[in-house]
Amino acid sequence: MSIIPESHRDLLERPLFAHLATIRPDGRPQVNPMWVRWDGEHLFFTNTTIRQKYRNITANPEVACSINDPEKPYRYLEIRGVVERIDPDPSGEFFIALAERYGLQLDGPPGDVEHRVVYVVRPIATSQQ
Amino acid sequence: MSIIPESHRDLLERPLFAHLATIRPDGRPQVNPMWVRWDGEHLFFTNTTIRQKYRNITANPEVACSINDPEKPYRYLEIRGVVERIDPDPSGEFFIALAERYGLQLDGPPGDVEHRVVYVVRPIATSQQ
Repeated sequence: MSIIPESHRDLLERPLFAHLATIRPDGRPQVNPMWVRWDGEHLFFTNTTIRQKYRNITANPEVACSINDPEKPYRYLEIRGVVERIDPDPSGEFFIALAERYGLQLDGPPGDVEHRVVYVVRPIATSQQ
Repeated sequence: MSIIPESHRDLLERPLFAHLATIRPDGRPQVNPMWVRWDGEHLFFTNTTIRQKYRNITANPEVACSINDPEKPYRYLEIRGVVERIDPDPSGEFFIALAERYGLQLDGPPGDVEHRVVYVVRPIATSQQ
């Protein structure tokens, strides 16, 4: 059973932006909007190994993300979790699927495809309103 | 001079939600949407002393927030900073002003007014797209 409350699952099912917080190697927080996919168990994010976020996550896999409802902005879901796995995405397959979920049609993989990875996050706790 | 880039100041000037990341006493990140005001120098957030976020910030004043443009969601501003001061707001004056900024008309102070505080954040670094 997922720990994501049924009342707020639509926020993960719709192509909304998740503001993903990570911790930098100096211990300070970082947060920015990301595409996200949920398979009913894990959350999936696309990134590259040449980004600050990758340095953060490989040093500290604890993350949190916040999604609010554009139509009712006081309605939100926070998920705290841990990056359980970092999968390579050398063909950009996951990136392209996620781009399509967010309404983008791509002609091919992105220019940074050789560095593409997928963060696989296991939700541990939620808060919501 | 503010470190907030001119190109993205509208994201602080408009009543948008800032996803505020803090670090919990166990070292894990937390993030959720908040009202915010910017006076050209500091960011101001309303909260109470009986919330988890207060415990986080009093233990570790390092924070970050992310705001994206509802009309162009790839356009965003991340601000990393430090809570320089926590001001009491026992009359709820700041809370009421912030509620009005976000389009709410209140009849009076909120029920938790005795615990209300204002986080005064000094921006230290930004990232944007």
